[in-house]
Amino acid sequence: MQQAEIGLIGLGVMGSNLALNIAEKGNRIAVFNRTTARTDEFLGEAGDLAGQIVACHTIEEFVAAIRPPRPIIIMIKAGDAVDQQIDALMPHLSGGDIMIDAGNANFRDTMSRFERLSGTGLTFIGMGVSGGEEGARHGPSIMVGGTPESYARVETVLTSIAAKYEDDPCCAWLGPNGAGHFVKTIHNGIEYADMQMIAEIYGILRDGLGKSATEIGSTFGGWNKGRLNSYLIEITEKVLAAADPATGGSMVDLILDKAGQKGTGKWSVIEAQQMGIPATAIEAAVAARSLSSMKSEREAAEALFGKEKLPFTLSGGNLETDLELALFAAKIAAYAQGFAVMSAASKEFGWSLPMPTIAKIWRAGCIIRSQFLDEITRAFTATPDAANLIVTPAFSAMVKESLPSLRRIVAAAVSAGLPVPALASALTYFDAYRQSRGTANLIQAQRDFFGAHGFDRTDGKDIHHGPWGSGASAA
Amino acid sequence: MQQAEIGLIGLGVMGSNLALNIAEKGNRIAVFNRTTARTDEFLGEAGDLAGQIVACHTIEEFVAAIRPPRPIIIMIKAGDAVDQQIDALMPHLSGGDIMIDAGNANFRDTMSRFERLSGTGLTFIGMGVSGGEEGARHGPSIMVGGTPESYARVETVLTSIAAKYEDDPCCAWLGPNGAGHFVKTIHNGIEYADMQMIAEIYGILRDGLGKSATEIGSTFGGWNKGRLNSYLIEITEKVLAAADPATGGSMVDLILDKAGQKGTGKWSVIEAQQMGIPATAIEAAVAARSLSSMKSEREAAEALFGKEKLPFTLSGGNLETDLELALFAAKIAAYAQGFAVMSAASKEFGWSLPMPTIAKIWRAGCIIRSQFLDEITRAFTATPDAANLIVTPAFSAMVKESLPSLRRIVAAAVSAGLPVPALASALTYFDAYRQSRGTANLIQAQRDFFGAHGFDRTDGKDIHHGPWGSGASAA
Repeated sequence: MQQAEIGLIGLGVMGSNLALNIAEKGNRIAVFNRTTARTDEFLGEAGDLAGQIVACHTIEEFVAAIRPPRPIIIMIKAGDAVDQQIDALMPHLSGGDIMIDAGNANFRDTMSRFERLSGTGLTFIGMGVSGGEEGARHGPSIMVGGTPESYARVETVLTSIAAKYEDDPCCAWLGPNGAGHFVKTIHNGIEYADMQMIAEIYGILRDGLGKSATEIGSTFGGWNKGRLNSYLIEITEKVLAAADPATGGSMVDLILDKAGQKGTGKWSVIEAQQMGIPATAIEAAVAARSLSSMKSEREAAEALFGKEKLPFTLSGGNLETDLELALFAAKIAAYAQGFAVMSAASKEFGWSLPMPTIAKIWRAGCIIRSQFLDEITRAFTATPDAANLIVTPAFSAMVKESLPSLRRIVAAAVSAGLPVPALASALTYFDAYRQSRGTANLIQAQRDFFGAHGFDRTDGKDIHHGPWGSGASAA
Repeated sequence: MQQAEIGLIGLGVMGSNLALNIAEKGNRIAVFNRTTARTDEFLGEAGDLAGQIVACHTIEEFVAAIRPPRPIIIMIKAGDAVDQQIDALMPHLSGGDIMIDAGNANFRDTMSRFERLSGTGLTFIGMGVSGGEEGARHGPSIMVGGTPESYARVETVLTSIAAKYEDDPCCAWLGPNGAGHFVKTIHNGIEYADMQMIAEIYGILRDGLGKSATEIGSTFGGWNKGRLNSYLIEITEKVLAAADPATGGSMVDLILDKAGQKGTGKWSVIEAQQMGIPATAIEAAVAARSLSSMKSEREAAEALFGKEKLPFTLSGGNLETDLELALFAAKIAAYAQGFAVMSAASKEFGWSLPMPTIAKIWRAGCIIRSQFLDEITRAFTATPDAANLIVTPAFSAMVKESLPSLRRIVAAAVSAGLPVPALASALTYFDAYRQSRGTANLIQAQRDFFGAHGFDRTDGKDIHHGPWGSGASAA
């Protein structure tokens, strides 16, 4: 029997869909699941594709079914289970075999796993896969971290199953060890910010302007034809248009306002903090989800403070255009921050992350896919050494055009008492970033006063403490 | 010879001052420093207090000089050096001896050290000390984590050297193992937010209203007589009033606007993130310091975007009162967040942190000391189960009074292009916290659409996916 090109362990929702995608693209695949009944069930679901699938009931059978060096995708719950799976597989593998963790692993765990396997002759790939079930089945975005050699072994299969943006497969090798999972983490962090900003604009339309879900849906539908065109705006239109079958009312109006989160947003923020890179839009989004989950605290606070109704008044500008441009400007800030975090990580971990390639493979397949990412691709290709996305010629022009709208919308929203944490953080990021003379001189003076921490002077003079007098530590 | 009540290792700036403080309060203290020349020098500096100090040149001599069970303060650079010091001390110690790390340790390291010493018969105290050099010398705020028994052994010495707020010593046992260092970390996180908010108000006065450093100094001086009365406002007045001896100009105007940071702000944010507690004001402050350090990027951005001069216009309200109340409201948010993080940590680590006591020992000695902390003490004493500081009767009244000013100031600042990341984050925190029906219903709809994550309904019906139709994962 012809050997399989690749193996896959874990036939949950994501694993099954990925396996079907692999089979459909003409790749022979061996599959294994801890519960063997699921393996058989899966083969039944595969229909016409079953001929491409080798369903295995034991690890021995599974490993033997794959052409060496064997690439084995592990698609199970992130965490300890992955280490247990590695332990279970190792005795059966031989030189050059590649275990591929396709789950949402913390890249630091991925790095430890590379470390652990070094010297064993086996190797590892940390592979970020974005696009949800749909993506897994019909074309995800795939972010690979590992050795170039192990990527070469799987490149054909992976590019065959990846989403395509104008024929370009959304799959790439991004760097060694944790690079792929790190980039996936930041992808998700940006996704958090993108979704939160959309939710804030929705909140202005709903609570500030009294629009219905259906009306707001068509506004987003209109924006999806313009510069905001993206998967997230598209599905925003769709979910806002959907009616609840049970009651006939707007579906979103019946959904509880408590958002879940699974860790990648938090990891993005923690890593940004570790490296000292501002990622305030992502932070605001993660905090907003946390606050959303404190429903009873919020109810008690509203009862206490009253549902203050202040007018939402725009000073100048066209309302709908301003909202569109405000969301666009804020989105630029979120992406700029995400790319800045990746740029710092690239230095920190010695990865040489290719920014244009990252933007490229996010253009399709993943949750944040958009034409906007094609513009980022072009900006980073044209200006590879840009310190920040917002100072590239293309994006600085977009910022100049859209910033006044963001300014008007944030001012109007905060005056009206509407919470816009992510939009406001984007605006203050721009304003702080473009201020050559900031206010940290005062902070340095205070730190020197109470802790003798010292400062530098604008005139370069070699004096590093202030004349604070008695009571000051730096006296 | 009479044995010393306590020992101290590490005669750097902080250690020397702490040792002199201990001696001055009538406690006999043994001291040791790796470089013995420094020990002798220190004895010389001690003047009249030398009689209370046993200067030791060897570890053996040092340990023998202390009354068992021996409390030994280690005041050296945080990190590996502390573990090396522990290793060096251990062979010389015996049952019940207490090593006290008084440096700015990460509480997770402190917890590991407790773990490491368990079963050795020796014990440990993680002790947060705030107040800079001045505080160490004349009365710091002291936050203790360890066993109640080891605290009982050192309580008399520590309360004798601590700052006093109306005769109450600013020293307390806060909980086991890492509790003291954790509380010190959050103290510093709040300090970051407090300083950043002051700097933002300074920025509005300087760049939005064209005031000189001297003028701004007197404004802060006035505020220091009112509700903002605190050490940080007091020193803000002083540093703004100071003239540079070299040039005669205002000192702050000659200080480079690049702020340093040493890690505790970052740790506060990371721990808040780990527990899912919004600490956006602290995050904004840490990010602002990071951005401040990117001076050349900011210069390039200003050259590109231009130094846009937009008018700072307040819509209603009295400018100076509004600025004062805005700072006050924002300060409440920062403290509320910091206490919420401690409350979550208390549950997470099983510490039972006493919130009123924490506020109490911050009223004097430490950098954020203020009368405001006395009000927090009273609020948490009166309402020990409050979900958040801002819903206690006393603070909700203050928020109601000051929030409109914060709203006007943030709206005016963002309209004028003045960066107010921490003030804006405080405002959006209030507005999100007091909104019983938020916008996370849209986020839940999106997550269900693309990832079949499911949602709950406001009407409690047992239906958890939307009718999204084709293309959706949750279809």
